[in-house]
Amino acid sequence: MPLKDDERIDQLHSSGIKIIQSPSVFAFSLDAVLLANFAEVNRKSRVVDLAAGNGAVGLFVARRTEQQVTLVELQPRLADMAERSVALNGLEDRVDVVNADLADTWDYVAKDSVDVVTCNPPYFKVRPGDVQNPNTALALARHELRTNFDTVARISAGLLKTGGKAFIVHRPDRLEELLHTLSAHQLAPKRIRFVYPKAGKEANMVLIEARRSGREGGVRILPPLLVYGPDGEYTDEVARLIHD
Amino acid sequence: MPLKDDERIDQLHSSGIKIIQSPSVFAFSLDAVLLANFAEVNRKSRVVDLAAGNGAVGLFVARRTEQQVTLVELQPRLADMAERSVALNGLEDRVDVVNADLADTWDYVAKDSVDVVTCNPPYFKVRPGDVQNPNTALALARHELRTNFDTVARISAGLLKTGGKAFIVHRPDRLEELLHTLSAHQLAPKRIRFVYPKAGKEANMVLIEARRSGREGGVRILPPLLVYGPDGEYTDEVARLIHD
Repeated sequence: MPLKDDERIDQLHSSGIKIIQSPSVFAFSLDAVLLANFAEVNRKSRVVDLAAGNGAVGLFVARRTEQQVTLVELQPRLADMAERSVALNGLEDRVDVVNADLADTWDYVAKDSVDVVTCNPPYFKVRPGDVQNPNTALALARHELRTNFDTVARISAGLLKTGGKAFIVHRPDRLEELLHTLSAHQLAPKRIRFVYPKAGKEANMVLIEARRSGREGGVRILPPLLVYGPDGEYTDEVARLIHD
Repeated sequence: MPLKDDERIDQLHSSGIKIIQSPSVFAFSLDAVLLANFAEVNRKSRVVDLAAGNGAVGLFVARRTEQQVTLVELQPRLADMAERSVALNGLEDRVDVVNADLADTWDYVAKDSVDVVTCNPPYFKVRPGDVQNPNTALALARHELRTNFDTVARISAGLLKTGGKAFIVHRPDRLEELLHTLSAHQLAPKRIRFVYPKAGKEANMVLIEARRSGREGGVRILPPLLVYGPDGEYTDEVARLIHD
């Protein structure tokens, strides 16, 4: 598999999946690993991963289903990395990469046809006067320059069958907006798990499961997920996801 | 202090406050202790406690302020218990009890005059066909028979000065509704803390701080609060609130 520029191949041992990474344009991080683990995917699940980046989340869950997994990524450079990672893992028959704005996903995947949507979207709102370079790949992946959470929720809801589920990782400081936006698109939040760097620290990630056309209310707050133990090493739960 | 029926006096050692309790009509529980601890009250804080029950939350925070604390309770029997607990602790000069529907609080306390509202409201929605006896004191305290969260948020927002804070304990299965309702009344959620019975269990309480006319977004998810340790005893954090 030819690598370009500063690319390298990382392997997530617990899944056996190899991913082409590039620190200058995009490298998956713990967020993707936790989201893939949080998503409920079984062998009958038709899956779409929105804002797929270099394809990490979609590839991690691909092993758990026998159905098609579609990765949607705006940036040609990242979509190309994802495409090559798909080949690297011999998954071309079941995993396809769409290089498009996620807002156009319905042009590529039929509405009401998907069991699971996963999404690790840009986390940061763009406010007037914010300083960031809109031309860099990293800025596009981190900031809502070309998409926003309302679009993610709207497109996800349209893709999902009734009862299908969206799994999202995001920043907890936007919690209220996330829950409200999901509900506004008939995606009822069902399970929430907060991720804390370590005991005694505030949460810095939130994992949300929402069900299309589910009953409102009754959300469950799962046990806290701590990333590091008092010794500064990964907790057993996180270590199992990464190393084993 | 004369006690009635099955009343007893409980003392929260960490505050030194004595509270008249009655298992058949109302006894404060850990929820009240955690809410009082979560609320930021300083010596200049004018405080109103809505749905005050037997007065536990208001009495616990009264020691921390030199200003007036008003307890609002619908049920005459509970308001009477709270009144006698106020006297038992010699706080008649600074703590008053209003026996009224919390919806009428503005008739007793001026709008835009309060720094801190605390509330441990009825947790459970009333749905058609639900079986409960609306005549019992416990049912009124637990179920939204005579009030609801929208009213709590509306009345709290009206009482608070700009920048004043509401502190609420509730059930996490209503999280989305709680956050949305607070925001709808210009109470911006600022800090949230989930309470878990023990490690590995789902949260069964949530503490929310919301600021009147605060900027939307930027909510902080505080470290998880675990009630019991692996040994089945209170964790150090909770034990300190109750025993010391």
